[in-house]
Amino acid sequence: MEEKILNAIQDIYPDDYAWCYGCGRLNEKGYQLRTGWSGEKTVTYYKPRPEHKSIPGFVYGGLLASLMDCHGTGSAALFLHRKNGNEIGDGVTPPRFVTASLKVDYKHPTPDGETLKALGTVEEIHPKKYKVYTEVFAGDKLVVTGEVVAVVMPKTFRTDEKDIKSSI
Amino acid sequence: MEEKILNAIQDIYPDDYAWCYGCGRLNEKGYQLRTGWSGEKTVTYYKPRPEHKSIPGFVYGGLLASLMDCHGTGSAALFLHRKNGNEIGDGVTPPRFVTASLKVDYKHPTPDGETLKALGTVEEIHPKKYKVYTEVFAGDKLVVTGEVVAVVMPKTFRTDEKDIKSSI
Repeated sequence: MEEKILNAIQDIYPDDYAWCYGCGRLNEKGYQLRTGWSGEKTVTYYKPRPEHKSIPGFVYGGLLASLMDCHGTGSAALFLHRKNGNEIGDGVTPPRFVTASLKVDYKHPTPDGETLKALGTVEEIHPKKYKVYTEVFAGDKLVVTGEVVAVVMPKTFRTDEKDIKSSI
Repeated sequence: MEEKILNAIQDIYPDDYAWCYGCGRLNEKGYQLRTGWSGEKTVTYYKPRPEHKSIPGFVYGGLLASLMDCHGTGSAALFLHRKNGNEIGDGVTPPRFVTASLKVDYKHPTPDGETLKALGTVEEIHPKKYKVYTEVFAGDKLVVTGEVVAVVMPKTFRTDEKDIKSSI
C-alpha cells in the first residue's frame, strides 16, 4: 500500500531546521518522517521499529502521536507553500511550522509489522494557523484519528531568521 | 528539582506488559518512564536525550506527547491500584491501562537540557476509565498541559490474561 513520496516538504527545510527527532532528515537517530501530497490530501508513511511497541504485538501510542505531530506540521507547510504559489523543487524555501496542540484518538489497537499511512486534510483557520485532520491506517484498517493545530514558527523558536523570512 | 521516585507503578507491571517503548522497564531502547505518587499528585521525570529536539535548543513535541501518554496510563494505574486497597510493594499485581485519547497543548517552547517533570491529577469517570490532567514543567516553567483518557486494558490487547485478572 505504500506509495513512493517523491517530493517531501521535509526534504527542503533549511538545514538549521532539519534536526527534528520526528521529521528531520539530518537527525540520524530520529524517525525521518517525510510528508508529501497525495491528490488533495497529504500523506506520511512510517514503519515502526520493533522496539516501538506498547504491548507486544501492538504499536506504541506515543509513536503514533509523533507521527500525527510531524505529519501535521509537514501538511501545514505543504499547504501554505502551495498557497504562496510555490511547489517543492522550485527552489523557494518553505514555511516551517510548530505544533500548538495535538489531539489523538486511538480507535483500535495498532498491530505491529505494518507500514502506517497517515492521510491529512488541511484547513486554514488564520493565515499563520492551520488545522490538520489526520487518519492513520495500518493496512486497510483505520486505527487512529487526530487533529493538529500548527502555527508558523514564532520568533521564540528562531536562532537564525534569514532562511525562512522570505516565505511567510 | 528532581525528587527520587522510590516506588513506580511500572516497576511492578508483569514482565509480559513491561515492554512499552515509553515506560517498559524491559525495553532497553525506550524511555523507561517511571511514575509514582507525590502527595495527592502523580509524578514522572524525564531528561530528554540530545537527539530529542525539534528545533535545536528545544524539545521535540512528540517526545512530550509520549511523556504525557505514559504518565497518563501510569497515573491511572497508580490511582486504581490504591482504590483497590493496594500499594506498590504489597505483592499485588496492578491494573494495566491503555490510552483511549490524548490531548497536548504546547504552551511554551520547551528548552532542552532540563529534566522535565510531569505532574498529574486523576479523575475517575467510570470504574474502568480515568482522566488524567497533566502539567509538564521544565525547571519552574510550565511548558505543556494535557489530558489523557486511560482505560483498563481491553481483551483485544491481551495475549495472556492470567497475570492481570486478579486486580481489575
